[in-house]
Amino acid sequence: MAENFDIIVIGGGPGGVAAAIRGVQLGAKVALVEGTHWGGFCLNRACVPTKLFSATVDRTKAIQTAAKMGFSKAEAAVDPAAVFKMKDELVGYFSMGTEGLVKAKGVTPIKGKGRLAGPGRVAVGETVYPAKAVIVAVGAQWVRPSFPGADLEGVVNSSEFLEEGKIPARSLILGAGSWAMELAQFLGVCGSQVVVAARGRGILPDFDQEIGQRLRGALKNDPLTILNSCQVVSIAGDQDGLSAVLSVKGKEETRQFDRVIYFDRQPALSGLGLDTVGLEDLGVDEHLATKAPGLWAVGDAVGKQPFLSHRSSAMGIIAAENALGAKRIFNPDIVPRVAYTNPQAASVGLSEDQAEEAGYDVLAGTAAIAASPMAMIQGVSSGVVKVVGEKKYGELLGVHIVAPFATEIIGAAALAIQMEATLEDLARSALPHPTIAESLSDAAREALGWAIYIP
Amino acid sequence: MAENFDIIVIGGGPGGVAAAIRGVQLGAKVALVEGTHWGGFCLNRACVPTKLFSATVDRTKAIQTAAKMGFSKAEAAVDPAAVFKMKDELVGYFSMGTEGLVKAKGVTPIKGKGRLAGPGRVAVGETVYPAKAVIVAVGAQWVRPSFPGADLEGVVNSSEFLEEGKIPARSLILGAGSWAMELAQFLGVCGSQVVVAARGRGILPDFDQEIGQRLRGALKNDPLTILNSCQVVSIAGDQDGLSAVLSVKGKEETRQFDRVIYFDRQPALSGLGLDTVGLEDLGVDEHLATKAPGLWAVGDAVGKQPFLSHRSSAMGIIAAENALGAKRIFNPDIVPRVAYTNPQAASVGLSEDQAEEAGYDVLAGTAAIAASPMAMIQGVSSGVVKVVGEKKYGELLGVHIVAPFATEIIGAAALAIQMEATLEDLARSALPHPTIAESLSDAAREALGWAIYIP
Repeated sequence: MAENFDIIVIGGGPGGVAAAIRGVQLGAKVALVEGTHWGGFCLNRACVPTKLFSATVDRTKAIQTAAKMGFSKAEAAVDPAAVFKMKDELVGYFSMGTEGLVKAKGVTPIKGKGRLAGPGRVAVGETVYPAKAVIVAVGAQWVRPSFPGADLEGVVNSSEFLEEGKIPARSLILGAGSWAMELAQFLGVCGSQVVVAARGRGILPDFDQEIGQRLRGALKNDPLTILNSCQVVSIAGDQDGLSAVLSVKGKEETRQFDRVIYFDRQPALSGLGLDTVGLEDLGVDEHLATKAPGLWAVGDAVGKQPFLSHRSSAMGIIAAENALGAKRIFNPDIVPRVAYTNPQAASVGLSEDQAEEAGYDVLAGTAAIAASPMAMIQGVSSGVVKVVGEKKYGELLGVHIVAPFATEIIGAAALAIQMEATLEDLARSALPHPTIAESLSDAAREALGWAIYIP
Repeated sequence: MAENFDIIVIGGGPGGVAAAIRGVQLGAKVALVEGTHWGGFCLNRACVPTKLFSATVDRTKAIQTAAKMGFSKAEAAVDPAAVFKMKDELVGYFSMGTEGLVKAKGVTPIKGKGRLAGPGRVAVGETVYPAKAVIVAVGAQWVRPSFPGADLEGVVNSSEFLEEGKIPARSLILGAGSWAMELAQFLGVCGSQVVVAARGRGILPDFDQEIGQRLRGALKNDPLTILNSCQVVSIAGDQDGLSAVLSVKGKEETRQFDRVIYFDRQPALSGLGLDTVGLEDLGVDEHLATKAPGLWAVGDAVGKQPFLSHRSSAMGIIAAENALGAKRIFNPDIVPRVAYTNPQAASVGLSEDQAEEAGYDVLAGTAAIAASPMAMIQGVSSGVVKVVGEKKYGELLGVHIVAPFATEIIGAAALAIQMEATLEDLARSALPHPTIAESLSDAAREALGWAIYIP
């Protein structure tokens, strides 16, 4: 039998790295098993690379709108090859940094694909390591769509698109979630003709309905076609690329593309050896414990959408603590959802619909970005800050934003919900003027019936 | 005797507008007296116009750095005349909007300069209005410097600079506070040769010392000369503009300028009629009551630096409530300080030095922006997020940031202090990744001795 550990963490993404480091900090001997890239999907294929694309969109728009904002000359052309090169450099730097961090913190890295090999046992290749506790943080894997033609070479997932490193002349984006919309905008500023096939009636299905509507309004001048209630019937290769038959609101139409990009993922449970510990899935309780003794699970492997790396890290910290005897509870309600579109969208807690379904007597307030001095200073007029609370105790239940800097601002709302703030607390804060963030206070005041700056 | 009011508010700036509207919302009959511009100094001469300048600096830098960030061609030229024109349009729009808002909310606007005329009496011109309560929100006024030559035409305050609407070829900025540094950067990108005469050894004297040091580091490639321990000895006009004798660290040197711009302001008490109510100054207690019965005061008129419009509005709301019988306390510790420099700086609560002086057993943690994935995605490497807390209860005492989006992020820290959050609360939040804001959590964890992402 190989070296013995207090905790073995399987998977070196955001959840696994946080869990392993936290374990060492609490005095445990911890191994972290990673087969391919340190930093996982987030660092290598998602958060870091795609947010670089989003920053490129932001910069392009800052340049494109400069002529209206006091500049006599402002020109720029995105060089996609240079962006892909930067992406490779950044990812390489952070992945190396993650490996270095893990080692510097005293975690034992084990290179290879880890799998469960019975209770308290993790196998890597031929070696079986015993551990008092095991934390599974293996993330998710791609799910290829099922329509005829989904196996054609030009039908790629977003990781494959990243590896190709080329802008298709005509792109079909499957779905209208945050990753899909971010990539659609990037492809648009790079000159691709982009069609977004949204399954439902709106975009950003994971967000409050008003958020998707507002973002869509803000995108009306973007070089994008969004088709709602749209599904792919079939795709065939022909001399002009990929011929896609789409069902749009029940009517079929055919369009030509060079790449079809999909984004669906599911927990990466294949080959994990769940059967060796008597499990069929990786469901966890509020302490992040699975039904198998000594086995914990965090992050995308647990399978609660949307996949978010900060959710994984927060879970990783708690799982390590609980694996060492604590009884901490993971609260999913304080985890923000973010879309690095332009403008950005961000959300935390309950939507207005969810709050009503949960039986709350809902108080909602909105502050339109069109009335925000900072938005006008930025030359932006579309967006909203929406606050959802309830009447009985005045509790803040959710915050939903479409606005510049939304991903940075939502942290204030997430902390407020974590601290069990009331609408009154938010209404009485002294957020700086002029900012987009200050709209949080007036939206809360509007919910309470005493907005100051909303007529 | 003229029309009778429950509350008369003197001054239509951020403090006065908020007080007047809040008064009406609580059922009072309220008049708001304003002599010149609705929206006050903030809207007309400070927040709105100068933050437009800051946005111009941001956009210029976004374009200037584009060549390193994946753009094949990126050029920009600021057109200062166009920026000044936008400024006039924005200010006009918001000032008109403020007048409209005040009326729509049911406040009675009175045009003219208001002054106290005995207890419960406000005079505007020849008319004396009786009121059950009076709220003074008259703001501050310029203080011309006292060195020889300070009365020369080319020595102007920042309002006069705005009215001139021209970029001087050579500018001397007196002081290194936030307004001074913001304007210095704007003049720099507009091609002015800028010298900042900092009185002390650093810049941003109102902020934690580390913040000024970090900002200064971030500005090292800006077209600015910062002279520390610098005072103006005298200024004389000659055929080459203004010849300034400066004392720099005790040594005199002479430099030529076209404009010398100063920023000092003090409460606008002259002609206010404080004597008619038996007062010598406008000091207020924690309820914002002056020593004269029925007289309340808010905002810059109260004279606590730094002047901040969101501080004034927060005070205005409380003063109106207390004037109508409430006993609310104004908490200055939850008011953030902000500098719209590039990168931005923002701060709330106690600095490390202040916390130590106050006798706390201090726990401080910092997260360097150089290690932030979002900062690297933005192409930024200078800056810091610093968290100050205390050991006994783990209470969060202050947060200090130099980073992109700092003015938007500081709201999270201000809310956390308002909610009496601990370092542990901040450490256990799930702020979105990748953002600059998430560094708040790792800085808090560092203070507690368990940073995850700091080696």
